[in-house]
Amino acid sequence: MLTPDRISLNTATVKAQWNLQQCIDGCLRHGFGGISPWRDVLQAAGVEAGAKAIRASGLRVSGLCRGGWYTAEGALTQAVLDDNFRAVDEAAAIGAECLVMVVGGLPAGSRDLPGARAIVEEGLARTLDYARTAAVKIAIEPLHPMYAADRAVVSTTAQALDICDQLGAGIGVALDVYHIWWDPEILAQIKRAGRERLLAFHLCDWLNPTRDLLTDRGMMGDGVIDIPALRRAVEAEGFTGLNEVEIFSAENWWKREGDAVLAEILQRGQSCC
Amino acid sequence: MLTPDRISLNTATVKAQWNLQQCIDGCLRHGFGGISPWRDVLQAAGVEAGAKAIRASGLRVSGLCRGGWYTAEGALTQAVLDDNFRAVDEAAAIGAECLVMVVGGLPAGSRDLPGARAIVEEGLARTLDYARTAAVKIAIEPLHPMYAADRAVVSTTAQALDICDQLGAGIGVALDVYHIWWDPEILAQIKRAGRERLLAFHLCDWLNPTRDLLTDRGMMGDGVIDIPALRRAVEAEGFTGLNEVEIFSAENWWKREGDAVLAEILQRGQSCC
Repeated sequence: MLTPDRISLNTATVKAQWNLQQCIDGCLRHGFGGISPWRDVLQAAGVEAGAKAIRASGLRVSGLCRGGWYTAEGALTQAVLDDNFRAVDEAAAIGAECLVMVVGGLPAGSRDLPGARAIVEEGLARTLDYARTAAVKIAIEPLHPMYAADRAVVSTTAQALDICDQLGAGIGVALDVYHIWWDPEILAQIKRAGRERLLAFHLCDWLNPTRDLLTDRGMMGDGVIDIPALRRAVEAEGFTGLNEVEIFSAENWWKREGDAVLAEILQRGQSCC
Repeated sequence: MLTPDRISLNTATVKAQWNLQQCIDGCLRHGFGGISPWRDVLQAAGVEAGAKAIRASGLRVSGLCRGGWYTAEGALTQAVLDDNFRAVDEAAAIGAECLVMVVGGLPAGSRDLPGARAIVEEGLARTLDYARTAAVKIAIEPLHPMYAADRAVVSTTAQALDICDQLGAGIGVALDVYHIWWDPEILAQIKRAGRERLLAFHLCDWLNPTRDLLTDRGMMGDGVIDIPALRRAVEAEGFTGLNEVEIFSAENWWKREGDAVLAEILQRGQSCC
């Protein structure tokens, strides 16, 4: 059971309904403990103004979504790195507990998965160097293997932790139950990660059937993921971050009134998490 | 480059177009080295008559698809086991080089992934006992993690090989590039499998974008999988089985004339594999 103060709202959950200020107001109205904005939502509000509004709210900021996409231009470019440095600055400005990294898929026209992974590792290393100067933590989000081509060539928690082990302090993982629930090694890898590497924990659910690869995520309790088991595992390692709810749902939750979505999240937090 | 004699036709590739006899005739007409029927296609022809037709063709039989589905009735039932024993008998009847196992997803209404995996392991053990008496090899097919809920709770090659190691001789893996290409450990796991455990190798491609979780597989060369690298890896272990082409494609290849599909497979075998 999750009390509201243990829950954070990822703004993508109501991306069709609310701008940043509406998300902040909604979180306060419903007693959420925190918020996690996407960069486009933050930038639409203006980074400085948005950061001021977030700080004034007193909400915790469980993350900023998202940096990464290192393979966007094929070889790692300065433009891609600069955008990641700006993401670090934005994370610092809003006091985010981490900058979540969706690392990027295969470059256009490429089938070279090892090559793409090398680009990603170099990009993460360069971003981490910068992030350390800003005291921002970098959180690699392993994405479900069905996104290996188009979004993230880091597909498992083990793979993300291997990168962390190479890069040292200041980097860890953002674990979203949607991406990791199927992994036979997940409990062992959560233990391996430990408190230092567990930087974010995201909630939603895997619907069966799933009708779209990207925008058919479920509300907690509507799918097949054993969320309490995963939450127990991260908390057993000492994770004290918030439970961030991030639901991409074009045909359901994005069509509902924002307050109804937040109310349902709190109810499911009590009954299903 | 694959010569026709190194290619096997999985009947699902032309499931909308051809029955078993038409598949056999098509394979012979185009010079394919083998065939791999699905059970429903074999049963539609009559197992005995179908087996006779296959043997008369002189085609190799790279597999029978599929046994498994151990979680279909929740706990493992005798009915499910009996169906698997029948699948073993059918594999023996057609001289299949292995019986491919799609092990089953979560039982209806369940979120208990470890429990489902235990059911599957027990089912595989019981089937293997029977298969050994019939000299049929059992091939666990790890399915892409996006099928963990509805089709297979065995999602990685490492997990499948762990089961094989527990069960001993007569069991191995069927590796389909579609299911394994994203796996950061795949080359190491192919090496771990070695010749004894590598029982089948299936080809198709991962399209980007993928529009449907089940029926939007691509023809080799139309997607992002580095097929030659995976083929080199299995052949480096001494795999001498056929390259079985299995493409589920509701909107494309299932709508084309069967001979055109087979001709395209041969062309792609030369240019993209």
